[in-house]
Parts: sequence; structure tokens; C-alpha cells
Amino acid sequence: MSELTYGIAIFPSKEIQDTANSYRKRYDPRYNKIPPHITLKEKFQASQEEIKEITKELNQVASEVEPFEIEINKVSSFSPVTNTVYLKVEPNESLTTLNKKMNEGKFLENQKYAFVPHITISQELSEDEHSDVYGSLRMSEFDMKDHIDRFQLLYQLEDGAWTVFETFKLGK
Amino acid sequence: MSELTYGIAIFPSKEIQDTANSYRKRYDPRYNKIPPHITLKEKFQASQEEIKEITKELNQVASEVEPFEIEINKVSSFSPVTNTVYLKVEPNESLTTLNKKMNEGKFLENQKYAFVPHITISQELSEDEHSDVYGSLRMSEFDMKDHIDRFQLLYQLEDGAWTVFETFKLGK
Repeated sequence: MSELTYGIAIFPSKEIQDTANSYRKRYDPRYNKIPPHITLKEKFQASQEEIKEITKELNQVASEVEPFEIEINKVSSFSPVTNTVYLKVEPNESLTTLNKKMNEGKFLENQKYAFVPHITISQELSEDEHSDVYGSLRMSEFDMKDHIDRFQLLYQLEDGAWTVFETFKLGK
Repeated sequence: MSELTYGIAIFPSKEIQDTANSYRKRYDPRYNKIPPHITLKEKFQASQEEIKEITKELNQVASEVEPFEIEINKVSSFSPVTNTVYLKVEPNESLTTLNKKMNEGKFLENQKYAFVPHITISQELSEDEHSDVYGSLRMSEFDMKDHIDRFQLLYQLEDGAWTVFETFKLGK
């Protein structure tokens, strides 16, 4: 079997996912390809042999980080780098540590930009559409908290959708 | 937090999922809500407390069933019960055992019909559409095999899409 494309992400609570989806269904063409998520590691290729090794490493990473809390208070945008609008996850040492551990040692280092934990709610819009969406959401206030105790390794299908391959529980 | 809607399913190999999706994208209005899958337990409600107990039970169930092979050779239909066309998973004792164990003991017994392992590729079509689709696919031959070593517990979002909550590995 050839290589698959993998990614690593956290799915927040149903409440947060439902909130994100209320925007995504209008503003994110990839809405249907994956549930709302916090990307921990950008997509990468791996063979079946390699993913066995990576799975072992991810068990190790998960065991080294205790479950933690996240907080979402506002919307932000990556503009002008990309026209991505997102629910901003407040700076969080556990997320940063997870991202770092997944980009060193036996892992491919493929973090393109500085790691900014976020849940995308709008992307791939034109400049004008982005301005409209971000303009209407930038002053919104949120008060969402969640307890994070796991992350997921996923792989991508031909149509771009993602299937979960495995769950890793933190602190175990 | 109130109750969530859960389900239990197996995601087969990417190859099988890609094949199923080549039909689903045309014939299944729920195509975007979940990747192609074999349902092991129909959807059910559970509180956060209940799902902790169920998770424990599912670990037990997973440990009692060894990884196994599946085979897909043809398409079939549940008509006239429902207009669902599916990739028929050949009769398989491991799948039957998993389904049975998830509908007895501490589990809610919510298996509506006799358990027929399948991967839906078309549903909710009109009588005529169903006849067309099934007529064009019923003579197709497939030769797909897969090694199954895990199943997934999922929950449903407000928009009907499913998020994976946890992976359970067979024989562990």
C-alpha cells in the first residue's frame, strides 16, 4: 500500500463544534470534510510502516502531557497571510508543547508558520468576502471553555475528507 | 451537560472508503456527514456519566475479539424495507459477535432489524431513483478485502455530522 496523508487534531466539545459549524457552513468550503478542530500537526505523508512508528511516538507524547483546559473568547484572522478567520484559542502551554513534540525527534518537522492554536470558521474566501465576514465577527465575544483529554490521528480520503485513525488519551 | 447521540462503527481501509465515496457522493445525501463505515451499533443517547461506563465496556468488548478479515464482493439493497443500497460485507462471525456484545449486558439493546454488515452507498432516494441505482450496480463485482483491527465510538453534532470520540483496538 502506498503512503497516506495524515494529520493530528483535537476535536473540542460538541458545544464548541456546533458554534464553529454555525459559521463554517456559510463561510468554509471545507466545512464537510472534517468536524471543527484544533490542528496540532499539519498534514504529512507516511507509509504503513512509518505510521506504526509514529503511533508509538504519539502514545509517548500523549503520556507526557496531562489533560488541560482551553478557553475561547474571540475571533481573529490570519490575514494578510491567508484569508482564514478563526475562533482564537487563548495561548496555552499544553497545546504549544504538543505541537512542539510532534515536530521534533522522530517526527517530520513540517510546521509552516508559528503555531497559533485556532479553530477555522472561514477560509478560501475572496478578499472582499473575507473583509465582510471578519468585519462582522471581529467584535463578537465568546465565553467557551473546554477540558481537553485526547487528540486524534486522522488520514485523508481521495475526496479530501478526513477519517480518524486513532485516539490518544493525554496523561495515560 | 445533556445527553449526546452516540454510534459505533468501523471505518474500512482508505481503498474501500474511496470506492464507497465514488457512489455516495452521487447517491447518498448523508455523504458529507460521516466517512464510509460499517455500523456496529445503531445510534443511542447517553449522558456523560453513562458514556464513561460504556467506554469501559467497549474496552472489554474490544479485548475479547481478535482482529479479523472482511471481504466485499457485491452490492445489495434493503428494499423494500428501506431504499438503501450497500456494499455487502460477506457474513462474518467477528462482526456478528461485536454487534451482539454491543446490544446486551450493560448496553441498550437497540438493534432494529437483523444485523446485516454493510457499507451504505445510496439512501433516501425515491423509488424510481433507487431502482435505477440498484439496477445499474446489482451486477457489479468487487474484490475488496480488509484487515479490521479497531472500531470507533462517535457522537453526532447538531448538523447531523459525526465526530469520533474514541478508538478501540481489537484483541488488546
